[in-house]
Amino acid sequence: MDKHISELIGHSRLRDRIVTAETAASWIKNGMTLGLSGFTRAGDAKAVPFALIEKAKQQHLKVNVYTGASLGSDVDKMMAEAGIVNKRLPFQADSFMRKKINEGEILFIDQHLSHTAELVRSDVLNPIDFAIVEAVSITEDGMIIPSTSVGNSSIFAKKARHIIVELNTAQPKELKGLHDIYEVGKQGEREPIPLTKVDDRIGTIGIPVDEDKIIGIVLTNQFDSPSTIVPPDAETSAIANHLIHFLRKEVAAGRLSEHLAPLQAGIGSVANAVLYGLLNSEFSNLEVYSEVLQDAVFDLIDAGKVRFASGCSITLSQNKMKEVYSNLDAYRDKLILRPQEISNHPEIVRRLGLISINTALEADIYGNINSTHVRGTNMMNGIGGSGDFARNARLTIFVTKSVAKNGAISSIVPFVSHVDHTEHDVDVIITEYGYADLRGLAPIERAPLIIENCAHPDYRPQLREYFKEALKRGGQTPHVLEKAFSWHVNYEKYGTMMEPKYQLQTQE
Amino acid sequence: MDKHISELIGHSRLRDRIVTAETAASWIKNGMTLGLSGFTRAGDAKAVPFALIEKAKQQHLKVNVYTGASLGSDVDKMMAEAGIVNKRLPFQADSFMRKKINEGEILFIDQHLSHTAELVRSDVLNPIDFAIVEAVSITEDGMIIPSTSVGNSSIFAKKARHIIVELNTAQPKELKGLHDIYEVGKQGEREPIPLTKVDDRIGTIGIPVDEDKIIGIVLTNQFDSPSTIVPPDAETSAIANHLIHFLRKEVAAGRLSEHLAPLQAGIGSVANAVLYGLLNSEFSNLEVYSEVLQDAVFDLIDAGKVRFASGCSITLSQNKMKEVYSNLDAYRDKLILRPQEISNHPEIVRRLGLISINTALEADIYGNINSTHVRGTNMMNGIGGSGDFARNARLTIFVTKSVAKNGAISSIVPFVSHVDHTEHDVDVIITEYGYADLRGLAPIERAPLIIENCAHPDYRPQLREYFKEALKRGGQTPHVLEKAFSWHVNYEKYGTMMEPKYQLQTQE
Ligand SMILES: CC(C)(COP(=O)(O)OP(=O)(O)OC[C@H]1O[C@@H](n2cnc3c(N)ncnc32)[C@H](O)[C@@H]1OP(=O)(O)O)[C@@H](O)C(=O)NCCC(=O)NCCS
Ligand SMILES: CC(C)(COP(=O)(O)OP(=O)(O)OC[C@H]1O[C@@H](n2cnc3c(N)ncnc32)[C@H](O)[C@@H]1OP(=O)(O)O)[C@@H](O)C(=O)NCCC(=O)NCCS
Repeated sequence: MDKHISELIGHSRLRDRIVTAETAASWIKNGMTLGLSGFTRAGDAKAVPFALIEKAKQQHLKVNVYTGASLGSDVDKMMAEAGIVNKRLPFQADSFMRKKINEGEILFIDQHLSHTAELVRSDVLNPIDFAIVEAVSITEDGMIIPSTSVGNSSIFAKKARHIIVELNTAQPKELKGLHDIYEVGKQGEREPIPLTKVDDRIGTIGIPVDEDKIIGIVLTNQFDSPSTIVPPDAETSAIANHLIHFLRKEVAAGRLSEHLAPLQAGIGSVANAVLYGLLNSEFSNLEVYSEVLQDAVFDLIDAGKVRFASGCSITLSQNKMKEVYSNLDAYRDKLILRPQEISNHPEIVRRLGLISINTALEADIYGNINSTHVRGTNMMNGIGGSGDFARNARLTIFVTKSVAKNGAISSIVPFVSHVDHTEHDVDVIITEYGYADLRGLAPIERAPLIIENCAHPDYRPQLREYFKEALKRGGQTPHVLEKAFSWHVNYEKYGTMMEPKYQLQTQE
Repeated sequence: MDKHISELIGHSRLRDRIVTAETAASWIKNGMTLGLSGFTRAGDAKAVPFALIEKAKQQHLKVNVYTGASLGSDVDKMMAEAGIVNKRLPFQADSFMRKKINEGEILFIDQHLSHTAELVRSDVLNPIDFAIVEAVSITEDGMIIPSTSVGNSSIFAKKARHIIVELNTAQPKELKGLHDIYEVGKQGEREPIPLTKVDDRIGTIGIPVDEDKIIGIVLTNQFDSPSTIVPPDAETSAIANHLIHFLRKEVAAGRLSEHLAPLQAGIGSVANAVLYGLLNSEFSNLEVYSEVLQDAVFDLIDAGKVRFASGCSITLSQNKMKEVYSNLDAYRDKLILRPQEISNHPEIVRRLGLISINTALEADIYGNINSTHVRGTNMMNGIGGSGDFARNARLTIFVTKSVAKNGAISSIVPFVSHVDHTEHDVDVIITEYGYADLRGLAPIERAPLIIENCAHPDYRPQLREYFKEALKRGGQTPHVLEKAFSWHVNYEKYGTMMEPKYQLQTQE
């Protein structure tokens, strides 16, 4: 065996277990349930899923696929194309898989990212036959050192009947030491999670496993797929500015210090752009306690703005990936990667008092948020960790552009067509037009704020009209139920949410 | 001073601060914010609010009223009638105040019951001018011993500028020793909450306060208003039976022991009836970790079924109150009363792995729950603690009768008219017809289960028709948006949710 490889497998007995991806795939039978590593395109199992897809060309094969979050390397796409996925959870973000989900061909369970581990631990979900986990090495005492994400890998490895390790030599082996694996234990028997600061180390540097369960090690050499983040534009920069303005007012009011509070920022272009806004702000010595760490977090570290970042995965653009991975030692004392159960744990989110910034598809005039369903029916990606954070953060902020599809869709609507975050959980809504600080306000106080500060000016008259009509009917949360979804219905019918009379006004 | 009274005020300096309710009320000015003790009709401040209502007959007076939860003794009703409430939070349950809220005359903020303390602690809400707290005594070192509820009293007392104590000699002074007051501290600076078992004592027996802040002590002698719980009927007994059947299956599957897991049961008749169902079950040595402890909990203790109950308040019927309060010593080692922030804390709910049972107004075919808004607009009571528990429990169960208003309303609808608990948070729905176990199911798998197992048979055909039409449009969560609220609109227009063609069938 290559000396290089045998160094990566510290445990000598395990060195005999190297197999091809095809052999590993041959163990996987129709109807089984797989737990794959991978979180927001980082650290996903790559070789075995592809071998499985090949195998499915010869024989009927459907499996349940559990992951950390979305997979990169086109794994979700290819699995969906091959038709091998029966049930998929808890999150995905591939456009082809999305299509299959919305066609009802893949059963998708949209889950809070901190919940999956509990359900696996307590045997509520189908038992996992194989955990397939990407690693950069295996220690002498048999611990699996994950690569660029932790996701649900530790609970999958613990509960699965068998484990297949994908030892990926393209991932920097210097990642070893950055992970902090902590197992909470069974409900009712567990201790408090002993984490009180973002940089606390509470676990082990790898995933401790029963070595007999590792039945195969597959060697791979493939980078993660780079992120596809779109750079900030005029609107997302405006959103960032409003956020900073808001935070400044919180500091002035004595509710935050200039170091703010540990930041969580969601996936996607908007959230990334918003973090970039902090680069040129006066806030310093910031901390990040988040899920995925995107480019902006590393730029903030480089600029000396962020002193420490705790996450669950690292998902970078091509260039940033090169930069960071060729120089990992510079980040060693500034980074920790944790299981998603810990990065998103309500206990920690509430204890630390995070500032949580996530992106909405749409918000309604009372502050309910839709993060997942286009027109109430079609799944976009999933709720991800947004609910874990939104419910428990010190400050729960949702950002969105005021319109989508060139203005044909207003992101502020009378009634969101799907509720992921209820009015009880939403503190601040920000669009490129401004922010609405909803804290301490009753619904009828919130609506005018959201309409006047956040909605696109072209949609404000139509929103005002709805609210006015609703107010006549009264109630804590006034609605004209027969018109509540008319905006979505109009878009479907006429290609725009704007009613004809307002279209005329807008054109004038 | 009466020797009896001076014994209750252990701290000698404080004995001089006894004032009449009128004097205390005279300190309260227009525009102020009050933090009142009181949780589900238990332990509410009684005298000063009434004096305030009297005072308001002479002069214009509007105040913001924060409480633990709903008040008894008609305090909410009378305050609403007197028109003295500007803003009210986080929960109420009086029908007259409800009317005023829905008429827009009282601004009501519906809040997760565990959240209010955080918002008060971090100065997000209006600062509290007066905390008015019912007590059974004050210790030598100046600790306030609350009466039958803790609610938000400890954080109110901590943050208020001034404290008025209502020393209620009608409440059993033997309550002393049953409370466990714990202050979590500021977010970002706090330690884990050191509670790992329902009977752990982690704090003090009273509310430690700066004695200088106690500017008045008002003597009162008035019982809590008894609860108005309706005894179990055929439907709620059937719901209880389905619950037990479900729990039995969980035990058989090895996911629960015969001691189950600590139980939380919500307010209202349905939840109370469901707990009664456990009386004749085989489950033993049960634990309760809940908010309000109603009659059923004490009957379960008496029957030797419940070994320990932790709550935030005790709300009993007239007879049960006499029984329990004349014999408190028998319950001393079986009871703890905690601040609502602790009884409902996500950290604890998740750590202990509660079984959470709350009542829904309506559920939809995908598992979303409306707990608060009648036809999406009119506030019933509020979300209360249901969200604190539902999001974090081991098992989240919602119960409801399948129909309301003699069948004119189906409690299972295509789309709930307000979302308090999202599909991500709901494990099991139970009606008198059966239960739907939604765990691990995609939305299109859930709908048939909910329709066939939970909906009233008379409404099933109409629900099936909706689902069938929705399925044709596809999507993760298929809907016919233009008809989603048609059931509610029909009820408003025609007095029934049932469409004419199905009315005929039902009559046949
Ligand atoms: C909501 C979410 C999809 C936004 O993603 P984003 O990349 O920041 O936002 P964009 O503005 O680029 O919008 C993405 C797409 O949604 C569309 N869109 C936005 N608002 C819409 C609306 N109200 N109705 C319909 N489509 C909408 C956009 O047009 C765009 O479509 P395209 O891909 O065809 O161009 C994404 O943040 C998400 O999946 N969030 C849920 C999970 C989450 O919050 N996780 C956070 C913890 S990690
Ligand atoms: C939902 C809730 C109102 C149910 O209360 P309950 O007393 O158990 O239930 P009932 O079946 O008696 O219904 C109460 C009323 O709502 C009405 N109702 C029930 N379902 C309805 C529906 N779908 N649409 C309209 N009205 C409905 C009933 O007809 C009844 O009306 P009435 O008072 O005019 O007779 C109550 O549990 C609640 O406020 N829950 C939210 C707070 C919470 O869950 N706290 C738990 C933690 S403590």
